Amino acid sequence: MSNRLTAFREKRSAMNEQVFALDHLGVKRFFNLDSNTYKDGALTGKQKELLGLVASAVLRCNDCIDYHLEQCAKEGWSHDEIIDAMNVALVVGGSIVIPHFRHGVETLNFLKEEGYFQS
Amino acid sequence: MSNRLTAFREKRSAMNEQVFALDHLGVKRFFNLDSNTYKDGALTGKQKELLGLVASAVLRCNDCIDYHLEQCAKEGWSHDEIIDAMNVALVVGGSIVIPHFRHGVETLNFLKEEGYFQS
Amino acid sequence: MSNRLTAFREKRSAMNEQVFALDHLGVKRFFNLDSNTYKDGALTGKQKELLGLVASAVLRCNDCIDYHLEQCAKEGWSHDEIIDAMNVALVVGGSIVIPHFRHGVETLNFLKEEGYFQS
Amino acid sequence: MSNRLTAFREKRSAMNEQVFALDHLGVKRFFNLDSNTYKDGALTGKQKELLGLVASAVLRCNDCIDYHLEQCAKEGWSHDEIIDAMNVALVVGGSIVIPHFRHGVETLNFLKEEGYFQS
Amino acid sequence: MSNRLTAFREKRSAMNEQVFALDHLGVKRFFNLDSNTYKDGALTGKQKELLGLVASAVLRCNDCIDYHLEQCAKEGWSHDEIIDAMNVALVVGGSIVIPHFRHGVETLNFLKEEGYFQS
Amino acid sequence: MSNRLTAFREKRSAMNEQVFALDHLGVKRFFNLDSNTYKDGALTGKQKELLGLVASAVLRCNDCIDYHLEQCAKEGWSHDEIIDAMNVALVVGGSIVIPHFRHGVETLNFLKEEGYFQS
Repeated sequence: MSNRLTAFREKRSAMNEQVFALDHLGVKRFFNLDSNTYKDGALTGKQKELLGLVASAVLRCNDCIDYHLEQCAKEGWSHDEIIDAMNVALVVGGSIVIPHFRHGVETLNFLKEEGYFQS
Repeated sequence: MSNRLTAFREKRSAMNEQVFALDHLGVKRFFNLDSNTYKDGALTGKQKELLGLVASAVLRCNDCIDYHLEQCAKEGWSHDEIIDAMNVALVVGGSIVIPHFRHGVETLNFLKEEGYFQS
Repeated sequence: MSNRLTAFREKRSAMNEQVFALDHLGVKRFFNLDSNTYKDGALTGKQKELLGLVASAVLRCNDCIDYHLEQCAKEGWSHDEIIDAMNVALVVGGSIVIPHFRHGVETLNFLKEEGYFQS
Repeated sequence: MSNRLTAFREKRSAMNEQVFALDHLGVKRFFNLDSNTYKDGALTGKQKELLGLVASAVLRCNDCIDYHLEQCAKEGWSHDEIIDAMNVALVVGGSIVIPHFRHGVETLNFLKEEGYFQS
Repeated sequence: MSNRLTAFREKRSAMNEQVFALDHLGVKRFFNLDSNTYKDGALTGKQKELLGLVASAVLRCNDCIDYHLEQCAKEGWSHDEIIDAMNVALVVGGSIVIPHFRHGVETLNFLKEEGYFQS
Repeated sequence: MSNRLTAFREKRSAMNEQVFALDHLGVKRFFNLDSNTYKDGALTGKQKELLGLVASAVLRCNDCIDYHLEQCAKEGWSHDEIIDAMNVALVVGGSIVIPHFRHGVETLNFLKEEGYFQS
């Protein structure tokens, strides 16, 4: 079941290792800060993953959309809830977001094939 | 208790009336579509206002931040939850978001003076 | 005569069908609103397609550029007029637009191969 | 009849003089290139001012919107045509463009007071 | 010698205090990370302030431009070098950067009045 | 040693030729202006290439990042200095820059394979 989502995950992992191997203190701190942002706080990690998804969509970054879509699926957001969130991004960001909306819908299909959104 | 938030509300209302008076069908439809986006659906209106806030913050639009901050306050998000959401925007959008983060914190102060976040 | 433009059209159609199949009222309304935007009004549809092209170019979205380039060709804009419009986008948006300018020129070549811009 | 549009024009002129006084060859060439962009070519200057307006609106720059609105008025675009162009920007750029749309409508009012759009 | 630059500094300081008083761990870490970014590393702090200026200019944030202009002046960059850097931002970012270029030139005037760039 | 960097160079050259063949005076002037921007002036060409890299990174344009990375390598910036510059872009631009940071690190690997950064 090879697709662009699995290819993305592998490339992302491999490159993240190389980024850490650079051993640049500021870069490593930024990556850690980024991970910690989505841990439970005043908001739950689940809530914040959805915020991260919408931020990624209006800023039109497909890799970021894919990453947060998977996290949202893992956190238990339903397919309909995710689409409703992406609709907010579409209206705020305008028709320029449409290609990224289509991309996200395709990614959701890959996630479905992997067993997410079944209940 | 005059401040920039009340001035913003008045200007926004007055100009919205003028926008509707233009009687451009496409523009009116867009404004209606925008309002409907934040009504209950698969996600609640409350959840979507927080998404709108984060989208506004990463796109760095102070007027949009002010509008969604007030909506978030009305919907019952706490001060701490709003800050936690804005922190997601800060990390996704970077230090270029900082002036808008400061702006949002000032707006939250105005909302506090108006009685929000008291419980 | 297979190229990335025909691949784009096919993928775009297939994904648009899936987007409509989501049956999200807000999303469907936005897509309809978007289509209606380019119909004759105070400005002609032809004029508005050129505006859509320039908006797409300064916002640096290749898929949007390709879509509007084809619409501009269909509406009867000449190759020279389209390049003159893209030059406005280049100057407004700066050298960061250059890769998208090159992309657009390649797309225009594909459109030429399909018979556009012959008169 | 003092308003923010006349203040903008004065500040813009004064600062442009200072920019030229810097005597930086690259900067001066860029400013000249920018002016020449809106002269008649394959497209008329009139057509290109409308493109410049839409580019400014989706990139959300109020000063640029004000400048191009005045140029569009001078070139003979009607109030309705300008609104129809700004609607394209609204749909492409999304609700984040709304504050700039309102700003543009106010600027059009100032231009009306100055005698534009009367025929 | 009251001007918008001194007003900006005061407001920025006051609001930064309020941001720290929020006591949000992620926000505080981001602000610390941001400060540390401009300390000597493989590049000097002086070099990195100029990078921060250009990044702020192409992203079109006047507050960020003002902050980095002052830091660049303090680090010893000359007026001509700063203009040459801002010209890079102008060409990369396009004519949409012009209002921010004018803003930056005015800020440089305020800095001159305060005694910078005298040698 | 075929990779995406060599493919990018070839495509870029071929398309630049086609852009010049359009024989649009404004476009040609913009391309010339762009090249001249990175020549020695108040700042050295070497310094300005690093500014161009950071501007490209915060604006999230992979092709522009690749181009400026190669120029930075040719101008003699070390691997560590380039990473330190990219870290500025990461902090200013936020986590949305991360995919472009990873892309840049991969490009630096290709440049290493070509013999850069050996001393």
